Amino acid sequence: MTHTEAETALTVRVDLPAGASTIGYDIVIGAGILHTLGALLTAHAPAPHYGMVSDARVAGLYGDRVTAAVRSTGAQVDLVRFPGGERSKTRETWAALTDALLGHGLGRDGCLIALGGGVTTDLAGFVAATFMRGIPCVQVPTSLLAQIDASIGGKTGVDTPAGKNLVGAFLHPRLVVIDPLVLATLPDAELRSGLAEAVKHAAIADAEYLDLILRDAPRLLEREVHALTRVIVRSVRIKAAVVARDPAELGERATLNFGHTIAHAVERVTAYAVPHGFAVAMGMVVEARLGELMGLTPRGTADRIRAALSALGLPVGLPADLTADAILAAAATDKKARAGRVRFALLAEPGRAARAPHGGWTFDAAPDLVRAALTRASL
Amino acid sequence: MTHTEAETALTVRVDLPAGASTIGYDIVIGAGILHTLGALLTAHAPAPHYGMVSDARVAGLYGDRVTAAVRSTGAQVDLVRFPGGERSKTRETWAALTDALLGHGLGRDGCLIALGGGVTTDLAGFVAATFMRGIPCVQVPTSLLAQIDASIGGKTGVDTPAGKNLVGAFLHPRLVVIDPLVLATLPDAELRSGLAEAVKHAAIADAEYLDLILRDAPRLLEREVHALTRVIVRSVRIKAAVVARDPAELGERATLNFGHTIAHAVERVTAYAVPHGFAVAMGMVVEARLGELMGLTPRGTADRIRAALSALGLPVGLPADLTADAILAAAATDKKARAGRVRFALLAEPGRAARAPHGGWTFDAAPDLVRAALTRASL
Repeated sequence: MTHTEAETALTVRVDLPAGASTIGYDIVIGAGILHTLGALLTAHAPAPHYGMVSDARVAGLYGDRVTAAVRSTGAQVDLVRFPGGERSKTRETWAALTDALLGHGLGRDGCLIALGGGVTTDLAGFVAATFMRGIPCVQVPTSLLAQIDASIGGKTGVDTPAGKNLVGAFLHPRLVVIDPLVLATLPDAELRSGLAEAVKHAAIADAEYLDLILRDAPRLLEREVHALTRVIVRSVRIKAAVVARDPAELGERATLNFGHTIAHAVERVTAYAVPHGFAVAMGMVVEARLGELMGLTPRGTADRIRAALSALGLPVGLPADLTADAILAAAATDKKARAGRVRFALLAEPGRAARAPHGGWTFDAAPDLVRAALTRASL
Repeated sequence: MTHTEAETALTVRVDLPAGASTIGYDIVIGAGILHTLGALLTAHAPAPHYGMVSDARVAGLYGDRVTAAVRSTGAQVDLVRFPGGERSKTRETWAALTDALLGHGLGRDGCLIALGGGVTTDLAGFVAATFMRGIPCVQVPTSLLAQIDASIGGKTGVDTPAGKNLVGAFLHPRLVVIDPLVLATLPDAELRSGLAEAVKHAAIADAEYLDLILRDAPRLLEREVHALTRVIVRSVRIKAAVVARDPAELGERATLNFGHTIAHAVERVTAYAVPHGFAVAMGMVVEARLGELMGLTPRGTADRIRAALSALGLPVGLPADLTADAILAAAATDKKARAGRVRFALLAEPGRAARAPHGGWTFDAAPDLVRAALTRASL
């Protein structure tokens, strides 16, 4: 896309097979389009009453503006808030938000708007999925990670004491509205965390995009709007295409977990002290190396990913105090482990996910190879 | 079905449009088939690990036997219990059951078995719907109400302080296994409660079935297995057909709510002191009368329904201490009220639900007419 195009809205369509919870939805991207949210809702998700869920920080920054835009549809709008952060992504917060919306009289003909980062899109999505057995949800992601990842694909959920996202549902949104201008207020660590997922998209689907990210890294870190919009559009297209081919995560969608088996283990071992995207950055280096050790991925792939991550100021080595054994043990209890075996999404080459011989998209790996990949990564 | 057929299993298929959470499922009915549950699971819902949810009473009666049948598949089986009763149908019980299953190591490749009455099938169904974003569920209903109603159709959920079933999800089961022999241990009020839903099925779909219920009433109350099996099979066929035509409750399925607008209001006003089926019995008489007052339903319909209910020992008048105003006020806050207007599923004649002029299946009614129907019903 050119700089001129970035000034206007661009739509990416997620087509879903008939019979899925919706027959597809639009992802509308454009600098400043938050102001046109009312018209977008009227066109894509009309309702007499909108509930809106936001954390305290985002509600303070954008709550009034977005509420006014929604109210311009003529509908009733009720904003409910929760304390921000992953610690709030619980069944208790979900119950409190549900009760607050019931208290406002939101009904089965209502629609829920999620305004915020990944915690909000996951949490509000789960509220919508379970509110009177499901009402439509519109995602208005305000973090880069939520814009290019969490808000697209219908995965909703909350954490339990036993782990992340162990309770949830699939609910494809009715509409996703992405305004790159809101990234101006995003904390720096969250911006870089989101860029790690952009690198992931490039790594599994588009080598040329990997080069673009490396080249644009300084402009991305300076939050240059055109550079950010380019990344959002390319990442959204990649994610939307994968989701459309596999809406219920039965196959190819596993490729989006590249880097994530190790990332989840790192997050669990560190009690989530490491931001998600940072853990994904470390995980991608380890898992690219694992692919190399398995003879599946060409040598040099891990280094190429590492270069892009480094340019973005992302960590590429594991924290020195983490042992390979601790990470391996944590990985074995991941919810994607089947019958106790750890699975990895790996690369065939930079820009292409590897397909398993049996036709699936994930691989078993011998613990010794995982240990070797982990050990080299921490050097 | 003949008496001979009742000795063997009979299967009713629920066909669903492609793309729904499953492409359809079997409801297997037969006296004594609980013993063959292992083979049914292997054929319909194979898994390396089964979780099973049951309340303390049903677990005490059938837990060991069913666990043994499931274990015969070679899979791991873990039974988790909760205190019985509608008071347990909460988010808190749902969370505790989820945590117990996570503690047993149930994974995404697991399958959840609901063994119990309507509270259990709704609650366990919601656990399955949200466990790691959804795992398959097998329903093994042990109350008549659960066998002919709650276990079929994919409606799952729990109550909140604001009302019944306000939180939940649609999850069509992978298999439903109905053994009429378990009704031998059902408390009497629960048996009659279930028979009220059978009358409802007859009222909306099959006038000849209404006559059969009236004729068989003494045998049903004596728990004669062939009579019960006949009712189960006919009711299941009616419910399955409606669900197959409207799996997500967007249209015709509303006809299954005949009697329920008033029933829910009665339950709420009495703080659920009235058993659900008893409330439905009262509600059907009132709503049949409402249809008559609206000129939609032939005169005499309410009396015919009333006769069947009376023969089954079900209440047909409202408790004397309930005012029409209290019931009207409670009905206005029902979750099926749209934009504050109360909706009713009504009858075109005994054995046929009424279709609304605009093509839907529910009707507005003037408060004065509802009041008149309520007042005559309490005479």
